[in-house]
Amino acid sequence: MHAPVELAKSYRLLNHGPTVLVSAAHGGQRNIMAAAWSMPLDFNPPKVAVVLDKSTVTRQLVEGSGTFALNVPTRAQAEATLAVGGISASELPPGQDKFAAFGLSAFAAERIDAPLLEGCAAWLECRLLPEPHLQHQYDLFLGEVIAAWADPRLFADGHWLDAAAGSTVHYIAGGRFFATGEAFDAKATPRRS
Amino acid sequence: MHAPVELAKSYRLLNHGPTVLVSAAHGGQRNIMAAAWSMPLDFNPPKVAVVLDKSTVTRQLVEGSGTFALNVPTRAQAEATLAVGGISASELPPGQDKFAAFGLSAFAAERIDAPLLEGCAAWLECRLLPEPHLQHQYDLFLGEVIAAWADPRLFADGHWLDAAAGSTVHYIAGGRFFATGEAFDAKATPRRS
Repeated sequence: MHAPVELAKSYRLLNHGPTVLVSAAHGGQRNIMAAAWSMPLDFNPPKVAVVLDKSTVTRQLVEGSGTFALNVPTRAQAEATLAVGGISASELPPGQDKFAAFGLSAFAAERIDAPLLEGCAAWLECRLLPEPHLQHQYDLFLGEVIAAWADPRLFADGHWLDAAAGSTVHYIAGGRFFATGEAFDAKATPRRS
Repeated sequence: MHAPVELAKSYRLLNHGPTVLVSAAHGGQRNIMAAAWSMPLDFNPPKVAVVLDKSTVTRQLVEGSGTFALNVPTRAQAEATLAVGGISASELPPGQDKFAAFGLSAFAAERIDAPLLEGCAAWLECRLLPEPHLQHQYDLFLGEVIAAWADPRLFADGHWLDAAAGSTVHYIAGGRFFATGEAFDAKATPRRS
């Protein structure tokens, strides 16, 4: 289930630092991988940054197509996140991709070719901002968000709903995650004197 | 309370995407600001990326000193996080800094001049990796982690302890945070065929 998210509010889909899945497609091939290292980079036009190791097939598809999607998985997808993060598409039998290998369903993005993983909390469709030095030197990829979607049961009217507590995940290491915990409001500390 | 963290494990202090406080000092001035947009960039040597807006005094101190610290605040520091994120040092009376204004205590870093905020869950001391194009075009600052510390009641032997659940925070917007929730282990989905 996905509803459009206003681009100026799309940074909020990543602002709390969830682990994401990066998907891309190019030349008849599609792939998806886990990335703990992503963040918003700007509000409007919204931009994102994500680290893609040189060994990954997804990186080749991002460089080939000039586009990628960030999918924000739910806690129910933690096992799938670990699965697509734990194997390279290059290790699969010819003709099989990770979607088929792990029984994952995808739907079409609106503005780009990357497949979007069904059942996620949110999705950001991105156009690569080519920065060859950054990509080569730091494995760092920048993108402009050109369409965004969220599960309206979790995020609506530009805000995460109360139901979002516990719904996304934050990778630690070794197959272990933190769930996103409860939301709370802080008041600013008054200034002294 | 702070104990050293092995540099090769220091990425784990940020891997789950907590909101951080960026501190820096230069020319007799010190400052601290909140940053929701930071992430690890490499394992070993460990690197980080953080977004620092052009309007911030902290950015001037980072550019002047070539160093900065990332402080990982606890939930008990959410109000202080909001406070130091909600005002610029340039708005304070002459001679006052945010530490004095909000009653915050700092201790000395080991390798850099930046003050470290007392009571945090973790601290990363960083040397700026100068990338003028990135800094100017995207407000994006890269650093190499040259020393790291954590509260040993929360993070020890390279791992977040069970007590860390609920201990750090993830900024949403408008004074609202998600707490870091419970930790759980996922098993990888078995591959089909």
